[in-house]
Amino acid sequence: MADIIELLRERLGEASVTLADEIESRHMSDWHVPAEPGTKPVALVRPRTPQEVSAVLAACTETRTPVVPQGGLTGLVGGATAIDGAVLLSLDRMREILELDATAGTITVEAGVPLQAIQEAADAVDLLYPLDIGSRGSCLIGGNVATNAGGNRVLRYGMTRDLVLGMEVVLADGTIVTTLNKMLKNNVGYDLKQFFIGSEGTLGVVTKVVLRLFPKPRSTATALCAFDDFDNVYAFLRRMRAGLADTMSSFEVMWPSFFEAALDKGNHRRPFAGQHAAYVLLEMMGTDPEQDGEHFEAVIGSAIEAGEVSDVVLAQSIGEADRFWAIRDMSGELDGALAPLVAFDISIETGRIAAFLDECERRCRERWSSARMYNFGHLADSNIHMFVTVEERPFPEHEIEQVIYECTQDWGGSISAEIGIGLLKRPYLAYSRSEAEIALMRRVKSALDPLNILNPTKVFEPLDIKLAAE
Amino acid sequence: MADIIELLRERLGEASVTLADEIESRHMSDWHVPAEPGTKPVALVRPRTPQEVSAVLAACTETRTPVVPQGGLTGLVGGATAIDGAVLLSLDRMREILELDATAGTITVEAGVPLQAIQEAADAVDLLYPLDIGSRGSCLIGGNVATNAGGNRVLRYGMTRDLVLGMEVVLADGTIVTTLNKMLKNNVGYDLKQFFIGSEGTLGVVTKVVLRLFPKPRSTATALCAFDDFDNVYAFLRRMRAGLADTMSSFEVMWPSFFEAALDKGNHRRPFAGQHAAYVLLEMMGTDPEQDGEHFEAVIGSAIEAGEVSDVVLAQSIGEADRFWAIRDMSGELDGALAPLVAFDISIETGRIAAFLDECERRCRERWSSARMYNFGHLADSNIHMFVTVEERPFPEHEIEQVIYECTQDWGGSISAEIGIGLLKRPYLAYSRSEAEIALMRRVKSALDPLNILNPTKVFEPLDIKLAAE
Repeated sequence: MADIIELLRERLGEASVTLADEIESRHMSDWHVPAEPGTKPVALVRPRTPQEVSAVLAACTETRTPVVPQGGLTGLVGGATAIDGAVLLSLDRMREILELDATAGTITVEAGVPLQAIQEAADAVDLLYPLDIGSRGSCLIGGNVATNAGGNRVLRYGMTRDLVLGMEVVLADGTIVTTLNKMLKNNVGYDLKQFFIGSEGTLGVVTKVVLRLFPKPRSTATALCAFDDFDNVYAFLRRMRAGLADTMSSFEVMWPSFFEAALDKGNHRRPFAGQHAAYVLLEMMGTDPEQDGEHFEAVIGSAIEAGEVSDVVLAQSIGEADRFWAIRDMSGELDGALAPLVAFDISIETGRIAAFLDECERRCRERWSSARMYNFGHLADSNIHMFVTVEERPFPEHEIEQVIYECTQDWGGSISAEIGIGLLKRPYLAYSRSEAEIALMRRVKSALDPLNILNPTKVFEPLDIKLAAE
Repeated sequence: MADIIELLRERLGEASVTLADEIESRHMSDWHVPAEPGTKPVALVRPRTPQEVSAVLAACTETRTPVVPQGGLTGLVGGATAIDGAVLLSLDRMREILELDATAGTITVEAGVPLQAIQEAADAVDLLYPLDIGSRGSCLIGGNVATNAGGNRVLRYGMTRDLVLGMEVVLADGTIVTTLNKMLKNNVGYDLKQFFIGSEGTLGVVTKVVLRLFPKPRSTATALCAFDDFDNVYAFLRRMRAGLADTMSSFEVMWPSFFEAALDKGNHRRPFAGQHAAYVLLEMMGTDPEQDGEHFEAVIGSAIEAGEVSDVVLAQSIGEADRFWAIRDMSGELDGALAPLVAFDISIETGRIAAFLDECERRCRERWSSARMYNFGHLADSNIHMFVTVEERPFPEHEIEQVIYECTQDWGGSISAEIGIGLLKRPYLAYSRSEAEIALMRRVKSALDPLNILNPTKVFEPLDIKLAAE
């Protein structure tokens, strides 16, 4: 223990090293997953340069000390949660925006820059950094990259992976690998940055990234649509894809139980007479303020003529669009209001989502007759969120997880569409990945981090890790 | 030798194994790079299933026999060119389209399906598979994935990497890893497919892929624009990005020497009076046939008002648009007509391309006063093509490569924007990648192919490979 702290102080200076007892509690866990009771990290370090990050990792390699990279600590699965005996490596002092190149459409930043600062820098030159998640003010870009963050605009702009052009990363042994590529096309050997995006701090520590910027949309049109038959939602989605193409920026589905609970708890005015089988919040972001609204109406009109949609309300103002979004955004409040519940972040291929939800409900009801599900999500992204609750007490949290993840496995879905594995979903990794896949991941982990010092215990079960390090 | 052939015959049946002397010459090289003189592969195998591919690789692992995966053999850098003593593993019998899911917007195919067959299958259900390259009728999708193919629509739809959702791949030891994911969002552990895309057959053999399909554009508008000052091209690009956003499908720049040679050799009518500093072929593909043309004209009109463009011709018909494209597509004929020359496929960040070309020309002229450059390319993609020719004989091919790649290195560019490294650019890998990057690539290569049987001698210099296999 003394050794690693001595090394860190020697290499970073005393001011950059906080000892175990003085570490603020906020560094012990992310937003959702606390550290295991009794966990005591050896130190928190806050390096200011890639060279200092390299020095920390080299010291940890020399002393075989585990390292937990930390960004804004806004994760939901414990990826950044403290580990006993580990060095907590916070990137939060590395917050410089290094360059914004409006012609290339790129911004180059240090890993500790908050997402919102990047959005604002782009906005100031009339460009868009499209990644957007609720924690935008607190999360740091390095964490977004390490977790391949998704969020509100994936349908149009993709996940974080699709937005990263270049990267500087520090390997477990302290080697700095710099590929600050700003070019869209670069087929020179392996695309190394892909290995680190979404690896949750288990393969390297990202210190800089080059991100793509986009033109800002010039127009927005919003509609709330009601359907009496779920199959029509799929027909409508295909029609909107054809008619709006890349300008379709949201296709959010709400199932009746979610929709009714949202109206009720939020005291929202009922936008439609009567009840329907499904509701879709549709949004288009275009480039032609003069014509886009008319085109949007025409494309929806063709769906009405075809009998796909039962009722439609077109937002006549920004205020009305905001009111539609307020219904969808009740998800945050319902999470509290309907507690206790288990929240899921599942991917299932788009065309089978409705049937999958029926099957989940059937399996839950079979076990708990009081089971209720509140479903909503990004249908076009293949991503569905579910709140599952039952009246039984004590609340059978893990049993509900078990039922839903087993169903996900049976249907070939993903147990984590966007929030990662971390500690929380680690026991379920094999529900969405085969033995061969996990063995290959483990092989890559061993190759890049042979001593298993980088965020050990995350993503893989400790048993797996031990095998990998043999 | 006898061993490997016995094993292959035993596992695949005699009909699937062609012995050295009977291998057709077309399997010895790709479109551009012949095998080294005296090269004699031990056999060509044409498996029909992933299990047979697995059997081949397991046999090669057992006997330490190198394997060269082959698709349509349309590469340009020797990635699929035969290696002495190797088994040539052709995927050309695995050509089944397994599923097309119009709701999810995906197609699942075997690796041996030609690109054009995928384009046609998508088209038949009113969808688009956007990857498009000249060899579409001959190239196979597995090769597209292994080389991360680019082509004509990267600006709007991305490289092959951006189009692959799922993959089945066979590792060097014969392990089949299947991840036929159809979902846009899936953050369960490492995204393994990323490791194999663009790895040129050195890390695994792709046997199946799941690809994204897109709605077909409903309108096309085309213009040819002339500029008297290159800086205005950048201003124009920014304006078009803002005004057309994702509907901008091409932004092809031609420099005067290329433009004049194309008009001359192709007997094309001169579209503008006089000569200009640069020409841009601009294309928009939209979703609203009624309004898109008007919007396109309005956006270009604003550039004319701002004084950015010197002259514009809007295509009034498909025929006229085709004539504009015919000028740009003279690149193929000029390659022959201006021979001998060296053709380059370089990426440089967009805003520095013009200055980079000036510097290349200066360095070439310094050495060969007769040097001439013909430049054209995908400016918005950061990708530029150059034909360089000199009057000196014997034609100093490698010296010209040396000058241009050194300049690329000095400017932090990429020596291969889209066609890969293979054999041809192997000596120049370090011009675009640092020692740390190459060491990391090598580490991954060693982890996934510890015996170095997968396409050895490709991408890395043999010396590097030996180090990696130690």
